[in-house]
Amino acid sequence: MSTSSFQEMWRDLKPLGRHAPTGGYRRFAWTAADADCRAWFRAQAEARGLAYETDRNGNQWAWLGDLEEGAGAVVTGSHLDSVPDGGAFDGPLGVVSAFGALDELRARGARPARPLGVVNFADEEGARFGLACVGSRLTAGQLSTDAARELRDADGVTLPQAMERAGHDPDALGPDPGRLARIGAFVELHVEQGVALAGTDHAVGVASAIWPHGRWRFDFRGEANHAGTTRMEDRHDPMLTYAHTVLSARKKAAQAGARATFGKVAVEPNGVNAIPALVRGWLDSRAADEEALHTLVAAVEQAARERAARDGTALEVTRESLTPVVDFDHTLRDRLAARLGGAPLLPTGAGHDAGILSGAVPAAMLYVRNPTGVSHAPAESAAEDDCAAGVRALADVLADLAGEEDEDEAERAQRAQRTERTEGAA
Amino acid sequence: MSTSSFQEMWRDLKPLGRHAPTGGYRRFAWTAADADCRAWFRAQAEARGLAYETDRNGNQWAWLGDLEEGAGAVVTGSHLDSVPDGGAFDGPLGVVSAFGALDELRARGARPARPLGVVNFADEEGARFGLACVGSRLTAGQLSTDAARELRDADGVTLPQAMERAGHDPDALGPDPGRLARIGAFVELHVEQGVALAGTDHAVGVASAIWPHGRWRFDFRGEANHAGTTRMEDRHDPMLTYAHTVLSARKKAAQAGARATFGKVAVEPNGVNAIPALVRGWLDSRAADEEALHTLVAAVEQAARERAARDGTALEVTRESLTPVVDFDHTLRDRLAARLGGAPLLPTGAGHDAGILSGAVPAAMLYVRNPTGVSHAPAESAAEDDCAAGVRALADVLADLAGEEDEDEAERAQRAQRTERTEGAA
Repeated sequence: MSTSSFQEMWRDLKPLGRHAPTGGYRRFAWTAADADCRAWFRAQAEARGLAYETDRNGNQWAWLGDLEEGAGAVVTGSHLDSVPDGGAFDGPLGVVSAFGALDELRARGARPARPLGVVNFADEEGARFGLACVGSRLTAGQLSTDAARELRDADGVTLPQAMERAGHDPDALGPDPGRLARIGAFVELHVEQGVALAGTDHAVGVASAIWPHGRWRFDFRGEANHAGTTRMEDRHDPMLTYAHTVLSARKKAAQAGARATFGKVAVEPNGVNAIPALVRGWLDSRAADEEALHTLVAAVEQAARERAARDGTALEVTRESLTPVVDFDHTLRDRLAARLGGAPLLPTGAGHDAGILSGAVPAAMLYVRNPTGVSHAPAESAAEDDCAAGVRALADVLADLAGEEDEDEAERAQRAQRTERTEGAA
Repeated sequence: MSTSSFQEMWRDLKPLGRHAPTGGYRRFAWTAADADCRAWFRAQAEARGLAYETDRNGNQWAWLGDLEEGAGAVVTGSHLDSVPDGGAFDGPLGVVSAFGALDELRARGARPARPLGVVNFADEEGARFGLACVGSRLTAGQLSTDAARELRDADGVTLPQAMERAGHDPDALGPDPGRLARIGAFVELHVEQGVALAGTDHAVGVASAIWPHGRWRFDFRGEANHAGTTRMEDRHDPMLTYAHTVLSARKKAAQAGARATFGKVAVEPNGVNAIPALVRGWLDSRAADEEALHTLVAAVEQAARERAARDGTALEVTRESLTPVVDFDHTLRDRLAARLGGAPLLPTGAGHDAGILSGAVPAAMLYVRNPTGVSHAPAESAAEDDCAAGVRALADVLADLAGEEDEDEAERAQRAQRTERTEGAA
């Protein structure tokens, strides 16, 4: 791997979408910051002579080698968008390392027998339209075109409108089975979102499973009134019901060894001297299996309803998304772990595009050690040496999965590529 | 009173700043909606041949009669701005009734010996800059010019910037003792914010006192992290501390027979899958006396600090405003109650410009019956008959306070007024 190119990639990416007051990133799908990141991706692909394309769902691809159907391409990559005030690594580390691994393979003189691809999946975090992994879900047919067309951001802008404003034609949105059929394996490298590796000698781990997870919107409705003149006993204050539900969720998740979080809230009218009419809170919940997840969410909802009855408020719960458990392909994950000298197998509570794709193609993930475990925040980090180890590990894995072609084939492929580039330039 | 003109005033005012989806008003200080309301006020003043002026702090005045210092003018009015999604009556009823009472006095052929004034105080609700009664506080010297210049809205726009953009020169902001010295009495009519009159035969009541009240900002800081990967026991989640504080405030206020409300909250980063870094909640609190208020707020803060220690979060409490108890001038309030046939005396938890002015001039308030007591919300209401009774009561009170001039003086005043209007037109 060429270290300077790796550092240059980070240097170019670093200022894009950064919010100076918080030090976090605001790279929301189909915004100007996202467009900057996408332009960066395209420039990286073109600088390496890779064949660049955007698919029908707005995911970006860069290809090395011939891409006929059934070619069994080996694809790596991640996403470039972020949560509000997210860190620098969640997503970008996988994309930067993908290009870095291709550079590393070239430096090693590798001649992969199968095509290699780098991908940037659109709208992985779901920060703008409320649903995560929109690009990969659409491609894998796990999100209907109709449902995608109805996604709206906080300003009422629909996903197709946002795509169109960003210069992407939304008319072709939909499943893309032909594209998936050309992929033999997908490997996503990601910064670890926990501290399982921090206490070990391993800079890189391999994903075992992704917990099932989902988002539920809790709409607590009460009666707006004057905060100064309405007696406490005459109120129907939905903030109280919300507050009780937040504390219940915490207690029940801790008891179940699972996760339940209210991290986003919207209040109407949100005035200092007005009892709210509406408090809308979003529950993010995850557990080791789906039964445990549903039991937990049902318990939180039950606690909320009991308190609502006491407060004289109304509650409506809407499931906004549910992603089933992902048990990554055992053959593939074991092959990766062995190739990396017995890298530890780690489960995670975080959703990823690799999880979405795992239903359609053999998929795997590599985790790069995170010293603090902090994620989705500016403090998210990974040591430079660990990032370099991640690139080497990814290169090892890609070389293993893509195989080595014999010299005649290599020469043929190189000739074909030279011709392609000349035509592309003309 | 001319009923048609009263209805016309409401008809013209009704669409200004109305937010159709909620049916509430969003008339925030120095916005376009506020400018529309202010243009309406000026048009009403001019249509009646009143002398119109805007004072150094952006309050609007309309004068009937000669305005020399020490004239002992009798002023009435209220404000036209609103809380977020406020009702139609809080503020506007006092301004519309002020013009209505002047119409009524004219219809009765009254010849007031003292000048009469109608006022629209700027930024009473404090919805945009976080501090209530900015216009009257500045005029009365209860808010320093420096502090006013540092007020900022949610977008970082300062009060002077907002004033300037709305066409008002902010350079002259400051106390206005000369103006107050010309006022002999101020009477503010307001929709009742409670149900004390609803069970009685009285459409109109008289204010006795305003509870001391204030706003405290609670900044709960924790550690932003991934909602899916961070174990419950590893979190420093400020949403938990906030939720606990909301419930504590409710409990302690109910015990004290006082008021404590968290109606406004701001979360960073406010992402569904991110544990917040910051939850900022505003406490609005009121009690019958200042000692009770301080005891209550201290108890809420204490509960918040105990929970913060448990959650591993940090708490900073900032007092944004504190308005002392107002005990309205007894002579004036008793005179009004007597003039209105023994109208009931009512205390209130709501702050008003009349309360601010009461430190500098004899001030009083009339309340018009509110069938549901709802206030600061679209459902706020007053019956048409009760509004008409309010206008008649206000006219009675103004006539009583302004006195009746002898006929020679009346003729002189009318001549002077005719001359003034002709000059104004040229």
